[in-house]
Amino acid sequence: MRVINFNAGPAGLPLPALERARDELLDFQGSGMSVMEHSHRGKEYESVHNEAISLLTELLGIPDTHQVLFLTGGASQQFAQVPMNFLPPGASADYLMTGVWSEKAYEEAKLVGQARIAATTVLPDKRYVRVPRQDELQLDPKAAYVHVTSNNTIYGTQWHRWPDVGNVPLVADMSSDFMWKPMDVSRFAFIYAGAQKNLGPSGVLIAVARKDFIARGRKDIPKIFRYSTHAENNSLYNTPPTLAIYLCRNVLAWAKQVGGVARLEQWNREKGELLYGALDKHAGFYHAPVERESRSYMNVVFKLPTPELDDTFVAEAKKAGMVGLKGYRTMGGIRASIYNAVTVDNVRTLVSFMEEFVRKNG
Amino acid sequence: MRVINFNAGPAGLPLPALERARDELLDFQGSGMSVMEHSHRGKEYESVHNEAISLLTELLGIPDTHQVLFLTGGASQQFAQVPMNFLPPGASADYLMTGVWSEKAYEEAKLVGQARIAATTVLPDKRYVRVPRQDELQLDPKAAYVHVTSNNTIYGTQWHRWPDVGNVPLVADMSSDFMWKPMDVSRFAFIYAGAQKNLGPSGVLIAVARKDFIARGRKDIPKIFRYSTHAENNSLYNTPPTLAIYLCRNVLAWAKQVGGVARLEQWNREKGELLYGALDKHAGFYHAPVERESRSYMNVVFKLPTPELDDTFVAEAKKAGMVGLKGYRTMGGIRASIYNAVTVDNVRTLVSFMEEFVRKNG
Repeated sequence: MRVINFNAGPAGLPLPALERARDELLDFQGSGMSVMEHSHRGKEYESVHNEAISLLTELLGIPDTHQVLFLTGGASQQFAQVPMNFLPPGASADYLMTGVWSEKAYEEAKLVGQARIAATTVLPDKRYVRVPRQDELQLDPKAAYVHVTSNNTIYGTQWHRWPDVGNVPLVADMSSDFMWKPMDVSRFAFIYAGAQKNLGPSGVLIAVARKDFIARGRKDIPKIFRYSTHAENNSLYNTPPTLAIYLCRNVLAWAKQVGGVARLEQWNREKGELLYGALDKHAGFYHAPVERESRSYMNVVFKLPTPELDDTFVAEAKKAGMVGLKGYRTMGGIRASIYNAVTVDNVRTLVSFMEEFVRKNG
Repeated sequence: MRVINFNAGPAGLPLPALERARDELLDFQGSGMSVMEHSHRGKEYESVHNEAISLLTELLGIPDTHQVLFLTGGASQQFAQVPMNFLPPGASADYLMTGVWSEKAYEEAKLVGQARIAATTVLPDKRYVRVPRQDELQLDPKAAYVHVTSNNTIYGTQWHRWPDVGNVPLVADMSSDFMWKPMDVSRFAFIYAGAQKNLGPSGVLIAVARKDFIARGRKDIPKIFRYSTHAENNSLYNTPPTLAIYLCRNVLAWAKQVGGVARLEQWNREKGELLYGALDKHAGFYHAPVERESRSYMNVVFKLPTPELDDTFVAEAKKAGMVGLKGYRTMGGIRASIYNAVTVDNVRTLVSFMEEFVRKNG
């Protein structure tokens, strides 16, 4: 029996996407072999590859100015690869600091070139409970780019209004909320997202790149690290992670089948409102630290009155068939990650459990 | 029905490894979720991760001086990452040129630092039909490392006696013949191999690194690109490609179950002798360009009297249930890749087909 999976990532995937993979794992479309045994240059795999790109293009309404890329190494590699491509000697890049992942991105950029903090909401105890307001941004109008982390898995914050960065290229790490709702891709020069939250298994990264921006990237870095190399070769310069891309294709096909990204947003908003509603209703018992305007619809963090009650909550939820609720190791408390594959019913089950837990322990 | 798969990579995998993946794709060991939906920090995935490492360590007899790493980006990324780690300013690295892949490795190294060609067997028409002899190596005793490509998928050559490089660290790209036979790992400072030939699906790379060598690697490069980062974190610094590593674990478990790497070598030698035996027997019809001492036991390349006969051969083989025999796009002819998952019986079937083809067309 399948459990309800609130993992922060790698996260649960839609059951139809997994069933499709299982059913054809030994024999992909009558070809007599698994999709992972096909050549990446053969027509069978190429049709999967191109279908994944066209589904994503359709679902997000990606304009012709932009191109979808499949890369590897996860978001952590992009923390280095972005400045390698876009931060030439003498230039500087602006970083908006909203948590552990933007800190890591900034630290890697400093090893490549000149990076500066254009805003931070860090508290004296190192936590973050909100993203910056527009009037807090101290932007360098000559910056090579501005880097933003759209959603923060650890602190449970999310940007709900994109920062206005004028004419400076905006680069976004959307690993943990990519495709959670429709978006205007044209605002961004470069978007990157590890697949393992909303899109597929770990081991593949999706980028949506403005073509003229990546074409201007540095050419004196190794060829494999230039985004232009992958753009010119339709992400087939070297052997891509074919099985991982195939699974993303399955997830994207599911997303289309259920009604597209507008439907996903509707479900995600309903899920968030159910969970935050329960937290607000029992604010004396459940403590949700994130400021209202910055609350994440992907990762909902909260604490119970004592660490012992946190542990009891996690253990009893597990008995009730819900896993992955333990907070990030340095944070403690509870984290419910409610990515696209988590259903409204799953969240209703969690909310009922929370109500019952208050009655018994409040 | 499964076909006989002679793909050069991604290549066929052992059926038991795939069946195991299929059977538990929706529910890994009764956990109620797929292995790809588990957290990389949870005990379920960690046991898979550590089992893959311990199986490989056992199968190759990897000594305590060395460590297994799981990386991403394929061998093409290592072409850049190796010099980033081991080629500091002022130093030089030696490259042994035996084909397209060593050329690519050399080109990337030149973008990072100073690289020199210490030997090449390239012909005036750009092909390679053998690897260099020891007396042809013009080694720099002060080189930071010597880089060798152990097997050449495109030209079908293979090193059968490692180059003697004295005290200079030896770095090897073993992507296409890793684990084809037992080996003395201690000869190498750094071995890397994309999984998609002998080990698993594309999307994960296995490295076997001498611990003191990678510890001395450069620290002024981005953290994600330092081998020491991944060594210190047991390849869990960032989210690894968990599903790909799980599949490698299944393949390694299969290798152990069938009798270990000595058994794989026995099968591989038998397969090679069957195929090269048929080519030699009908040398007037099948032209095998590689010199005898450099013949690859992984990729067997040959040509028929005319390109039209090559095409007929590929088409009729396909009708007989054998795929992946078309030569590399720039090479033409036939290439039979006979990695570990290809059975002796599979090769017998191909050899019978070749005999019959000569009778009909010779």
